[in-house]
Amino acid sequence: MVVPAKPSGASPVVLVTGFDPFGGQRVNPSWQAVQALHDSRIAGHRVVGAELPTVFVKCLQAMRGLLRQHRPTLVICTGQAGGRTAISLERVAINVDDARIADNAGAQPVDRAVVPQGPAAYFTGLPIKAMLQAMLDAGINAEVSQTAGTFVCNHLFFGLMHRIATRPVAAGLRGGFIHIPYLPEQAARFPGVPSMSLATMVEALRIAVACALAVEKDIAETGGQLH
Amino acid sequence: MVVPAKPSGASPVVLVTGFDPFGGQRVNPSWQAVQALHDSRIAGHRVVGAELPTVFVKCLQAMRGLLRQHRPTLVICTGQAGGRTAISLERVAINVDDARIADNAGAQPVDRAVVPQGPAAYFTGLPIKAMLQAMLDAGINAEVSQTAGTFVCNHLFFGLMHRIATRPVAAGLRGGFIHIPYLPEQAARFPGVPSMSLATMVEALRIAVACALAVEKDIAETGGQLH
Amino acid sequence: MVVPAKPSGASPVVLVTGFDPFGGQRVNPSWQAVQALHDSRIAGHRVVGAELPTVFVKCLQAMRGLLRQHRPTLVICTGQAGGRTAISLERVAINVDDARIADNAGAQPVDRAVVPQGPAAYFTGLPIKAMLQAMLDAGINAEVSQTAGTFVCNHLFFGLMHRIATRPVAAGLRGGFIHIPYLPEQAARFPGVPSMSLATMVEALRIAVACALAVEKDIAETGGQLH
Amino acid sequence: MVVPAKPSGASPVVLVTGFDPFGGQRVNPSWQAVQALHDSRIAGHRVVGAELPTVFVKCLQAMRGLLRQHRPTLVICTGQAGGRTAISLERVAINVDDARIADNAGAQPVDRAVVPQGPAAYFTGLPIKAMLQAMLDAGINAEVSQTAGTFVCNHLFFGLMHRIATRPVAAGLRGGFIHIPYLPEQAARFPGVPSMSLATMVEALRIAVACALAVEKDIAETGGQLH
Repeated sequence: MVVPAKPSGASPVVLVTGFDPFGGQRVNPSWQAVQALHDSRIAGHRVVGAELPTVFVKCLQAMRGLLRQHRPTLVICTGQAGGRTAISLERVAINVDDARIADNAGAQPVDRAVVPQGPAAYFTGLPIKAMLQAMLDAGINAEVSQTAGTFVCNHLFFGLMHRIATRPVAAGLRGGFIHIPYLPEQAARFPGVPSMSLATMVEALRIAVACALAVEKDIAETGGQLH
Repeated sequence: MVVPAKPSGASPVVLVTGFDPFGGQRVNPSWQAVQALHDSRIAGHRVVGAELPTVFVKCLQAMRGLLRQHRPTLVICTGQAGGRTAISLERVAINVDDARIADNAGAQPVDRAVVPQGPAAYFTGLPIKAMLQAMLDAGINAEVSQTAGTFVCNHLFFGLMHRIATRPVAAGLRGGFIHIPYLPEQAARFPGVPSMSLATMVEALRIAVACALAVEKDIAETGGQLH
Repeated sequence: MVVPAKPSGASPVVLVTGFDPFGGQRVNPSWQAVQALHDSRIAGHRVVGAELPTVFVKCLQAMRGLLRQHRPTLVICTGQAGGRTAISLERVAINVDDARIADNAGAQPVDRAVVPQGPAAYFTGLPIKAMLQAMLDAGINAEVSQTAGTFVCNHLFFGLMHRIATRPVAAGLRGGFIHIPYLPEQAARFPGVPSMSLATMVEALRIAVACALAVEKDIAETGGQLH
Repeated sequence: MVVPAKPSGASPVVLVTGFDPFGGQRVNPSWQAVQALHDSRIAGHRVVGAELPTVFVKCLQAMRGLLRQHRPTLVICTGQAGGRTAISLERVAINVDDARIADNAGAQPVDRAVVPQGPAAYFTGLPIKAMLQAMLDAGINAEVSQTAGTFVCNHLFFGLMHRIATRPVAAGLRGGFIHIPYLPEQAARFPGVPSMSLATMVEALRIAVACALAVEKDIAETGGQLH
């Protein structure tokens, strides 16, 4: 793989991705929030926002292209977690696709490995406990999550971590995944379904990026689940 | 009761109330939202916002004072419903106090009538179905609720409706009650607990007032519960 | 109305009703549980179990027929509350039909009174706080509920209480309503949906009848909701 | 390690474990259910039921002793998952301890590996999709779960799978973990908290054992989560 030289003097890049809408939704809050951060600057870094297709395999191909193109020092992928109440900092990606619904290309794999012969799981490369504290301190609903599911989000997360572990495009590259609740307009007609305002989501992602850039080694703070 | 004459030419008044914090909370979203509307103008009416104490009996005394003072044409009371996901348009107030926790004065009545010899319940005087549609059209989480509970909120709601039914201070006075979710900062440290941004709450109340002023007879739209 | 004389010497009757299946379900746990109690004896009373149609108006006509036929001293109506975790002792019936789905005859009334010119609500005639304690003491999930919804269950409950209030067929007749969760087989394919075993439901109803027969005046125990 | 010879002619053993009560509970449904299966026979195998302490490290020491003593061909560990509605067939164990509460010996590790230098995760060795189908067919609430949490249950699950992967005491030994809801008496005073009857739990575990003995290679049936 030939990586074109980055123009000398350019700012280091943080890559933040969202997904396109799926499952009958007209918007995907992850891309709405990422779009709002695109081209902003955080702690001397330029944020590149990108929208990925909610399609197994293809989203990972797009991710690899983005890694080659932008050679980021940090990658934060995001996706919609309809029904959750809080920004979910994902702890672990597992090596399985098991789709309850078809992806946007009609594929619905069951119990298939993301990476055959790959390990069972990867832990996130993000300082999720420090990010959790920073979000809570800002009054934002946030939690550590022990599962990113088994759909396209987990597929991307596992594929990204496998890429970082096996073919790092840049020294010290770190990455991870964050799940985001519905927007109010997605939940409006479904009483009992929680949501979060776009402004809060954008602020949460800004905090996530700033925190990941500032914190090298994560803090030890409780964030587990009894089951 | 001597009601001082309202200055001729003054705008008609909409009274909107919230409660002070209770149950160990440092804020009450209902008062936060009402405060933001205080002294604004909606459809030729002046909005008077007032904070009531989360105290049985006393909140109703304060309400009666406000009715005498402002002689509103519309009264919308609001209160915090921690754990709900949506703006809850309350359909019915029932004639019972049954407190799971003590109010802010330490009282915790069990199975006591709000108004001895009063009827079992009053339906709201607000066009809640029209309000529901208007909020959903604006992308706001909203629902019709069939119970305002049995704590101070229901006490105020029942007392207000009884006052309107038995000693109306103004011809055509209408009133009702709206429950409001937690603010994000209240829910932040409790994953699984839903919340709503203050901006959305304020917009919801503005829509509620405008809709109640515009709609005389409510529309017939489904808003019930199976159980 | 000519009421045929009850054979002298016959046991007093407790009437317990359930509903037939609705909403695409193949069973209704309320009738399953009631059926198991039919013809049993509790505290010197004979239990008559009856299945009512999940149909507005018609269920009340059937109820009136049962009251004339059996002249019970106690009536406990039950219905399915899919999604609830506990035996729900209903506190209040409200005078409104507002159907989210069609009943078993295709009717879907919206904001229609159960009894035109009737009061807004009736409180239950059952000692629900004593029943709550008795069920909890037996290790059964139970709660006081402040709303029986606005579908056929509330319709029957309101109609029964109105009948008792206005045309009592027997001196001292008392009545009320209990909601029941899904059976395990109804919830099995829907993870996240709670259920209760039939044996527990039957035991709960047996306790309900025994307690209602034993307790004339309800105890004062907390059973309210904050909202 | 010297493994004493199993008496020739003895039945093969299935080891099923539960935990002792923790978190202020007086019972642990996992041990209640396992106890009921102890010494029963399923498909020519003898079931050995054992109670493990809800204590990090120590539960694994006890497990290793049981493996040496009984040399089972199948191990199913179970634990309490208060708040879940269904029998949860755990898909994956992760290599982290992160305790929200102290275990029964007062330890509360945060972000510590179960096995330092071990892999990030192990997938279950049980045919969980076949077990899911068998339970659903029997009318039992069941689900595949993508996380066993980060407390003692996951600790035991990971430790067991690591043992099987690295020092198998018997050829073909398989193992995994199942989470179990509260019993009705644990949930009774907490409306909104789901539960399951002991009889259903016992039947579910019997099905789990029979299915694991009968099914060598799991079926491919959807059982994933979107997130």
